[in-house]
Amino acid sequence: GFAKVDHHRPKRQGFPEVIFGEGKTAQQIIEIAHSMLAKKVNILATRIEQEKAEIVKTSLPEFEYDPTSRTMILRNEEKPTILAGYIAVICAGTSDLPVTEEAAKTLEAFGIEVRRFYDVGVAGIHRLFNYIEEIQQATVSIVVAGMEGALPSVVGGLVSHPVIAVPTSVGYGANFQGLSALLTMLNSCASGISVVNIDNGFGGAYNAALIHRVANKIEN
Amino acid sequence: GFAKVDHHRPKRQGFPEVIFGEGKTAQQIIEIAHSMLAKKVNILATRIEQEKAEIVKTSLPEFEYDPTSRTMILRNEEKPTILAGYIAVICAGTSDLPVTEEAAKTLEAFGIEVRRFYDVGVAGIHRLFNYIEEIQQATVSIVVAGMEGALPSVVGGLVSHPVIAVPTSVGYGANFQGLSALLTMLNSCASGISVVNIDNGFGGAYNAALIHRVANKIEN
Amino acid sequence: GFAKVDHHRPKRQGFPEVIFGEGKTAQQIIEIAHSMLAKKVNILATRIEQEKAEIVKTSLPEFEYDPTSRTMILRNEEKPTILAGYIAVICAGTSDLPVTEEAAKTLEAFGIEVRRFYDVGVAGIHRLFNYIEEIQQATVSIVVAGMEGALPSVVGGLVSHPVIAVPTSVGYGANFQGLSALLTMLNSCASGISVVNIDNGFGGAYNAALIHRVANKIEN
Amino acid sequence: GFAKVDHHRPKRQGFPEVIFGEGKTAQQIIEIAHSMLAKKVNILATRIEQEKAEIVKTSLPEFEYDPTSRTMILRNEEKPTILAGYIAVICAGTSDLPVTEEAAKTLEAFGIEVRRFYDVGVAGIHRLFNYIEEIQQATVSIVVAGMEGALPSVVGGLVSHPVIAVPTSVGYGANFQGLSALLTMLNSCASGISVVNIDNGFGGAYNAALIHRVANKIEN
Amino acid sequence: GFAKVDHHRPKRQGFPEVIFGEGKTAQQIIEIAHSMLAKKVNILATRIEQEKAEIVKTSLPEFEYDPTSRTMILRNEEKPTILAGYIAVICAGTSDLPVTEEAAKTLEAFGIEVRRFYDVGVAGIHRLFNYIEEIQQATVSIVVAGMEGALPSVVGGLVSHPVIAVPTSVGYGANFQGLSALLTMLNSCASGISVVNIDNGFGGAYNAALIHRVANKIEN
Amino acid sequence: GFAKVDHHRPKRQGFPEVIFGEGKTAQQIIEIAHSMLAKKVNILATRIEQEKAEIVKTSLPEFEYDPTSRTMILRNEEKPTILAGYIAVICAGTSDLPVTEEAAKTLEAFGIEVRRFYDVGVAGIHRLFNYIEEIQQATVSIVVAGMEGALPSVVGGLVSHPVIAVPTSVGYGANFQGLSALLTMLNSCASGISVVNIDNGFGGAYNAALIHRVANKIEN
Amino acid sequence: GFAKVDHHRPKRQGFPEVIFGEGKTAQQIIEIAHSMLAKKVNILATRIEQEKAEIVKTSLPEFEYDPTSRTMILRNEEKPTILAGYIAVICAGTSDLPVTEEAAKTLEAFGIEVRRFYDVGVAGIHRLFNYIEEIQQATVSIVVAGMEGALPSVVGGLVSHPVIAVPTSVGYGANFQGLSALLTMLNSCASGISVVNIDNGFGGAYNAALIHRVANKIEN
Amino acid sequence: GFAKVDHHRPKRQGFPEVIFGEGKTAQQIIEIAHSMLAKKVNILATRIEQEKAEIVKTSLPEFEYDPTSRTMILRNEEKPTILAGYIAVICAGTSDLPVTEEAAKTLEAFGIEVRRFYDVGVAGIHRLFNYIEEIQQATVSIVVAGMEGALPSVVGGLVSHPVIAVPTSVGYGANFQGLSALLTMLNSCASGISVVNIDNGFGGAYNAALIHRVANKIEN
Ligand SMILES: Nc1ncnc2c1ncn2[C@@H]1O[C@H](COP(=O)(O)O)[C@@H](O)[C@H]1O
Ligand SMILES: Nc1ncnc2c1ncn2[C@@H]1O[C@H](COP(=O)(O)O)[C@@H](O)[C@H]1O
Ligand SMILES: Nc1ncnc2c1ncn2[C@@H]1O[C@H](COP(=O)(O)O)[C@@H](O)[C@H]1O
Ligand SMILES: Nc1ncnc2c1ncn2[C@@H]1O[C@H](COP(=O)(O)O)[C@@H](O)[C@H]1O
Ligand SMILES: [Mg+2]
Ligand SMILES: [Mg+2]
Ligand SMILES: [Mg+2]
Ligand SMILES: [Mg+2]
Ligand SMILES: [Mg+2]
Ligand SMILES: [Mg+2]
Ligand SMILES: [Mg+2]
Ligand SMILES: [Mg+2]
Repeated sequence: GFAKVDHHRPKRQGFPEVIFGEGKTAQQIIEIAHSMLAKKVNILATRIEQEKAEIVKTSLPEFEYDPTSRTMILRNEEKPTILAGYIAVICAGTSDLPVTEEAAKTLEAFGIEVRRFYDVGVAGIHRLFNYIEEIQQATVSIVVAGMEGALPSVVGGLVSHPVIAVPTSVGYGANFQGLSALLTMLNSCASGISVVNIDNGFGGAYNAALIHRVANKIEN
Repeated sequence: GFAKVDHHRPKRQGFPEVIFGEGKTAQQIIEIAHSMLAKKVNILATRIEQEKAEIVKTSLPEFEYDPTSRTMILRNEEKPTILAGYIAVICAGTSDLPVTEEAAKTLEAFGIEVRRFYDVGVAGIHRLFNYIEEIQQATVSIVVAGMEGALPSVVGGLVSHPVIAVPTSVGYGANFQGLSALLTMLNSCASGISVVNIDNGFGGAYNAALIHRVANKIEN
Repeated sequence: GFAKVDHHRPKRQGFPEVIFGEGKTAQQIIEIAHSMLAKKVNILATRIEQEKAEIVKTSLPEFEYDPTSRTMILRNEEKPTILAGYIAVICAGTSDLPVTEEAAKTLEAFGIEVRRFYDVGVAGIHRLFNYIEEIQQATVSIVVAGMEGALPSVVGGLVSHPVIAVPTSVGYGANFQGLSALLTMLNSCASGISVVNIDNGFGGAYNAALIHRVANKIEN
Repeated sequence: GFAKVDHHRPKRQGFPEVIFGEGKTAQQIIEIAHSMLAKKVNILATRIEQEKAEIVKTSLPEFEYDPTSRTMILRNEEKPTILAGYIAVICAGTSDLPVTEEAAKTLEAFGIEVRRFYDVGVAGIHRLFNYIEEIQQATVSIVVAGMEGALPSVVGGLVSHPVIAVPTSVGYGANFQGLSALLTMLNSCASGISVVNIDNGFGGAYNAALIHRVANKIEN
Repeated sequence: GFAKVDHHRPKRQGFPEVIFGEGKTAQQIIEIAHSMLAKKVNILATRIEQEKAEIVKTSLPEFEYDPTSRTMILRNEEKPTILAGYIAVICAGTSDLPVTEEAAKTLEAFGIEVRRFYDVGVAGIHRLFNYIEEIQQATVSIVVAGMEGALPSVVGGLVSHPVIAVPTSVGYGANFQGLSALLTMLNSCASGISVVNIDNGFGGAYNAALIHRVANKIEN
Repeated sequence: GFAKVDHHRPKRQGFPEVIFGEGKTAQQIIEIAHSMLAKKVNILATRIEQEKAEIVKTSLPEFEYDPTSRTMILRNEEKPTILAGYIAVICAGTSDLPVTEEAAKTLEAFGIEVRRFYDVGVAGIHRLFNYIEEIQQATVSIVVAGMEGALPSVVGGLVSHPVIAVPTSVGYGANFQGLSALLTMLNSCASGISVVNIDNGFGGAYNAALIHRVANKIEN
Repeated sequence: GFAKVDHHRPKRQGFPEVIFGEGKTAQQIIEIAHSMLAKKVNILATRIEQEKAEIVKTSLPEFEYDPTSRTMILRNEEKPTILAGYIAVICAGTSDLPVTEEAAKTLEAFGIEVRRFYDVGVAGIHRLFNYIEEIQQATVSIVVAGMEGALPSVVGGLVSHPVIAVPTSVGYGANFQGLSALLTMLNSCASGISVVNIDNGFGGAYNAALIHRVANKIEN
Repeated sequence: GFAKVDHHRPKRQGFPEVIFGEGKTAQQIIEIAHSMLAKKVNILATRIEQEKAEIVKTSLPEFEYDPTSRTMILRNEEKPTILAGYIAVICAGTSDLPVTEEAAKTLEAFGIEVRRFYDVGVAGIHRLFNYIEEIQQATVSIVVAGMEGALPSVVGGLVSHPVIAVPTSVGYGANFQGLSALLTMLNSCASGISVVNIDNGFGGAYNAALIHRVANKIEN
């Protein structure tokens, strides 16, 4: 076929391959999903437009589509792993929701509990403090922010667990499609912060999930 | 002469011209300073290296040199204006001191009271909260930060007066000589923030001083 | 709800939160506006396309929409504050009108008198000189310019009050979506200039309004 | 004093503050180190030039200096925590050694076992395969690379634990001081990779250490 | 006419001029193709959208159109040259197919045998190793990759023939429309790699074909 | 020899080749100058450091060196052409002098009258108006500016002859080594402005000289 | 009105103001054109889309529209000036035609003879040599090129009159919307070249026209 | 040891590993060279400063050092391969010599005949035409150029063999350390051109050598 699906990945890397929908036709997504059905793992596809989702569902109606995060999931695990603890998913503003929900949905597809703390950006920092204790109890935080992208620095200074920072392309002008938020996060004075690509909610979740699994002593 | 010193500026703009020392020889600075002596205004020169300052002082020993801010000042006002209130000068880290002190010294040369709040960056945000009430009472805040430059956003969300943000070139790697902090400040979600050039402590102070004069109902 | 509207802001910062319309649905804007009605403050929404405005008005017909600035306002103040003086709003060319009017409308929503000086760019500098005295009497100037963005430097050299410079993305080629004008303004030789983000007419107005309030001795 | 040392950090964040030596004088470093002595934690200082280190050691001879990583450490822990497992520290070329050793020394200062896999870059990929099983047994990998920075992608595809990627500024021309390696790592097709700033060996180590502590069930 | 078609090129450069379709109307392409018919060489046009192709075919139905590579070819050689050996055309992911097939179709239009190795990117490096011997027997490899663009470095380290690297604009965020992959390839540690423009599958093929002709001792 | 000096250029292009001193040794400059002596044209060398100039003069003492412009000239014309009219050489600030004088000295080496208008930048625009009539009578203006680089736009709007704009690298921070001034000039609203490379005083002069020669009806 | 049309410009600058159509409505163009009719000068409008042109012509049918250059002209001069000589308008490829014709049409609107030399780019340099003598006889050359933008350098080395270089945004990938051609032209080794903005055919023509007028001894 | 020298490379890739001297100490270079002596291949080291070379020669006096190219070579082949044909090494200006000679010396270390064509840049294109037939007879051309980097396009249009383009960092201002030349070469209209990193004379030579070996039917 046109693609070499990496079926060994769940073994080698612990999570099933996730379908990156951008640039794939509905037909290609259907084909890949079918080839994964036998593995009895949840099938997640990201970056799927509504229309494409509809077509995919005509062939695989078990898929649930979420328009905010543009993800679709087909629950197919035989007995889901139960993981202790939760991951804090935090975002600065309501415009960051699509990327943030991509992260949250990915974690949930991996069977991880998510606690959401949304619209708590640094320009009204008291909103963050309302939730800070609950955030501090998480195993890891995913912090999503666009525009100046300053929120991970503040969170990073208040928690003692790893922070995964996800810059978004939300903004305009000197934001340069997310470059501003990206540079902010890479230059953070707070030390426990690492960064993924602009708008890469999936990648943020994947990294957080790996850490969460470490916390649950899942053998590699 | 080689330069057209703008002696009308105090009249036209309210503050005497300040000598920009970078790229000028000690001899040129001495010449310009001498041509300003008769005006009976404080003479401030910025971006002066220690060695250059020494040479200038052999001709004009009334100059005081400050190595941190690399400024020198010759107090020559006949009766200094007394201005009510103070300006908060805030910085994120100790490496931002040279730019921050350039701002503070400029304000003091203009006869304005300065209150300093240093090393209160966002990675340890509690340090800022210790001083926030005193900051809120200022007429205007100058907030200086390098690296991710997030501090002005947080201050801007906590005060109701104008904030002048000064990015510094402190940092390395993806900081790109201050570009990171500059973009952060331009993209701030907090609304009352305007920005000057990277490392332009002088410019930050000049803008703040203009506002402070407005607050003191000084006629233009 | 999806958003944490910052109702304390009028207290903390002096102006009501303004709704940033970009990326919000008509439904979200209606919801936010409704939650603000009780506060008896003017409600301003920026970056609203015509179609979205129509939908919002079906629910809240008191909103007035202005297509040039893409703003809509709902006048809801009980007794408007009377502020002395005016702000000069200046722009270089007719293509800068949308951003410039966003600034002017924002100021008017905040109850501030605006005087407009439009199409007075540096390539025909005599046009500016026709109005310069009236500009000099303002408390603060907002100068909006695209392409080479040189107008704030010239204005800044002619007035003794603060200048807020707003770069626009008007231009093409080596303009790089407003980068050219932005850099010009950040590098201005005139000292009393501070800068906001590209196309950020609202931010320019907000900063100017804060200064105008200082001039009116409004307590914070 | 000039700096607000964040003595609460060990409590709040789990590791003592590390002294960032760049831009600090020997005298400032001595002062900060002295103020930390009573806490009975290891004191690490990074980005210290040889000469500066010599001066610091005249006052605090217990410091050991390592010229490759430009770090110095003063072992002052009362009873070091014993952590199970090890972190793999991997680099592409011999020119990446300074950044890589900054990471390794930081981990060792935090009491974590390090296994080093050096000069195994992608242009001779068989060198990596010689060690891949030992790498796979680590709790987390730190992968350091300059030039095209491709090594983290390859490692990320072969392990099932989190990978922290550290771009270095090693290279020339279109490398743009590490931008090339940074972009490579941010755009990696392998999912479990997060990135820190160019040349930030310390930051890579700090993030890895947080994860390692999670693996050791250390309470926050 | 509007264009000076370079009919001497087959003589001067060994291959007929290829029609670059972008920005040309169907009518212009037809006109140029007609002017080439007499030469009895294959006529290749690249970057042709489906609709444009249809129009061209109404006038010149001998053209075959391929939607993936957006190329069309009219076979018109009198007796095709038989060249020994083959070129390996390799790509990292399925999204790179359009650029990769542009390369492959160009080679086939020039009468060169192509062997395709697709979807063998570095995040699952074992997929490459399955085919490496067959790749090593090629006269030259064309390696196409987007996102981090690391594949040419790995291939370059495993073969002893020249590698032509083609970056694609596949990716998002910090990929900057292919800049990331381009920089990766220019900075490769593997020595036998040279690079063409982003998305320039045609150029990659043209360079490879010149080398292949050298291998076949075709006189210039 | 190591260089192919273009002795035909005076014939082909009207002016003798000028020696670009950067990166050449004193010995190479001497050799090139000697090879030009027989032509009986003025010999100009640019970008020559003081020390290098001294060495060159030990061999060719007829050279005059000017430290501001870092040029040296050896007057060797048999009967200098007399050209009518003059070129206005204008600069914004005193820091722009080196580049400006490179332009002026080059013109004088070509036998053209120069009128200098220095330190008349836009932040004190009245300084320019003092000289504007004399500037308007020139055949062409060269306008040199660093920082925001706005002066050519203003001059361009006030004269009816061609303006050659020369950006300088004078500035700091968001000036990016002259990028800011360069972009300003390329985006000028005033129409009769064309631009040369950053710090290219020589190039500005060369272009202006070609135009001046046109004005003098010198046959090519 | 909304715009301050600069009716003095023909006096002050020698050519009538040209209407920049981008971002103006048909109605605004009609209004401006009407206000210029009385001056008895040719009226040129640039960057006009076909549809907009149709609407303008319903009100002012004397306008002629040219779709390639997207210009429209209304011939309204009482007695056109007769200027001696011609300007060479040269372009590299057929995709550069829109920008090139914008230049040519502007010159013709100004009453200047144009000779066109199209599709003579450097990759087939013999095409340029066919016309070089006729080019050398021009008063000035306008050289338009996209992609690598190398043509002005070659022309500049072959003629002794001024060359105005116009980069176009034609290209893709590492062309970065014309940046590549722009940088090439700014860095040209050939000395008599000055540059205007990307795609600014009008500006290239305006500069050339000013020089042509100098050659015709038209008093300013 | 600190480095994993890739002794299998001659077998795997056809040429011995070349020592990249930048960032290596003399001691490290000596050590690596010693470890290669037994292989009986020529040992080449690039990017070696004069002083470092002297130290290396005290231990390995058989090394010959060339200051222009900053390379050193130790001839140690038992019986050099005789390869037919030659490679044309071409450069634009005399400032490009260091990079150009790095290429030439590398080829000679690999036993390949080099023909040099120097200082033949496009601003005096007749200089290239003097040698074009000899260039056309080469198996491959390496074309080195800085500033606008246009030479490879012209050569590429005149030869029918592959062209390897090497941009140099020669230039200033908008050259951005070679970025200008790099972009020019990547965007070349001439089809048979591929590009290596800025200043990478070694890489240009390596690629050319691989092609030359293909022409000589050397089995891989
Ligand atoms: N540190 C500084 N950064 C930016 N501008 C400055 C600085 N110090 C002084 N200036 C400005 O530079 C002007 C003097 O420039 P100059 O004529 O070159 O001496 C003063 O009027 C100030 O507006
Ligand atoms: N090499 C390094 N790179 C980046 N951050 C560092 C480095 N070394 C220490 N730090 C951080 O810098 C902080 C101290 O900064 P400062 O207050 O300026 O001394 C520490 O808490 C660390 O988080
Ligand atoms: N300061 C300068 N900046 C740019 N180009 C220059 C400069 N001085 C001389 N040149 C040009 O450099 C050419 C000589 O270059 P070269 O052959 O390297 O000596 C001259 O013919 C001039 O066109
Ligand atoms: N001047 C150069 N530029 C780029 N790469 C080089 C250069 N000289 C040698 N190399 C490459 O660097 C490799 C050796 O790198 P290293 O292991 O750091 O010594 C060699 O195998 C060459 O492929
Ligand atoms: Mg909000
Ligand atoms: Mg600190
Ligand atoms: Mg106008
Ligand atoms: Mg190595
Ligand atoms: Mg795949
Ligand atoms: Mg001055
Ligand atoms: Mg063509
Ligand atoms: Mg030369």
